[in-house]
Amino acid sequence: MSTHHTPERSAHLSEPHCIFCKIVQGQIPSKKVYEDDELLAFHDINPWAPIHFLIIPKTHIASMAQLTPVHEGVMGRIMVKAGELALKAGALPYPEGGFRVVVNTGRHGGQEVHHVHVHVLAGERPWQKI
Amino acid sequence: MSTHHTPERSAHLSEPHCIFCKIVQGQIPSKKVYEDDELLAFHDINPWAPIHFLIIPKTHIASMAQLTPVHEGVMGRIMVKAGELALKAGALPYPEGGFRVVVNTGRHGGQEVHHVHVHVLAGERPWQKI
Repeated sequence: MSTHHTPERSAHLSEPHCIFCKIVQGQIPSKKVYEDDELLAFHDINPWAPIHFLIIPKTHIASMAQLTPVHEGVMGRIMVKAGELALKAGALPYPEGGFRVVVNTGRHGGQEVHHVHVHVLAGERPWQKI
Repeated sequence: MSTHHTPERSAHLSEPHCIFCKIVQGQIPSKKVYEDDELLAFHDINPWAPIHFLIIPKTHIASMAQLTPVHEGVMGRIMVKAGELALKAGALPYPEGGFRVVVNTGRHGGQEVHHVHVHVLAGERPWQKI
C-alpha cells in the first residue's frame, strides 16, 4: 500500500501510476454504476458478459493478498453492494437470473490491474469468459 | 433465511435440507481447511483447480442476493481470510502465484448449492474451469 496521502477530502491512499486510482480521482473517465466515500463501481471497458462492472475500494490495495482485518469493512460492503448494483445494472433477480462475482489475485489468479477489483458479471449465457 | 434456531452454542441459523448446513453441523463429513465460530472452509469435492476450497458462513444465507448490511462483517471476514487460507492450502504467494475467488448467485451465475459459498482456486494453470 502507498504511503502517499492525496489532498482530497476523503484522504484516501493512492498510487500515482495505478489506472484504477486515476479513475477514482477522475483523471481517467469511467462509466459509473455507483459511488460513495469508500467505493466506486464502473462498467468494465472489455466486458465478458452482457453485464460486467467492477467494484473497487477507493483506497489503493494492490490485491486480495494484501488484505488484513482493517479491510473487513470495505470488503464486506463491496460484497453486500454487489447484488443491489447487479439489479440496478439490469441483472434479472435471483434465482432465475443472478450474477457471478470474481476476484483475481496474482498470476495464477489472472490478475491484470493491481488494485483490488471485484468483477460482477450477469445476463444471459453464454459469456465470453468464465 | 431460515427462522429455525439450532440448539448449539453458537445458535446459528440453519436450513434442515441444506447440504452445507449439514457440513457445518458435522452431519456430512468434509475435509476442513479452517473453522471458527462464524466461518467454515473445506475442500471442494469436485475441484476445478489444483487447489480448490470453499469458505462459507455457518449461518444459512441462500445466496449473495440475500445479503444485507448485517452481513458485511461475515462477508468481509471471508474475503480477508481467503488469501491466508490459500497460502495455507498450498498456493504460491502473490504476485507469481495467487488465487481466484468466485461466488455464483442464481441460474445466470451458475449457483449449484443455495448456501453462500466463496470458491477459492489456486495452483498451476490450466484449470478445468474458469
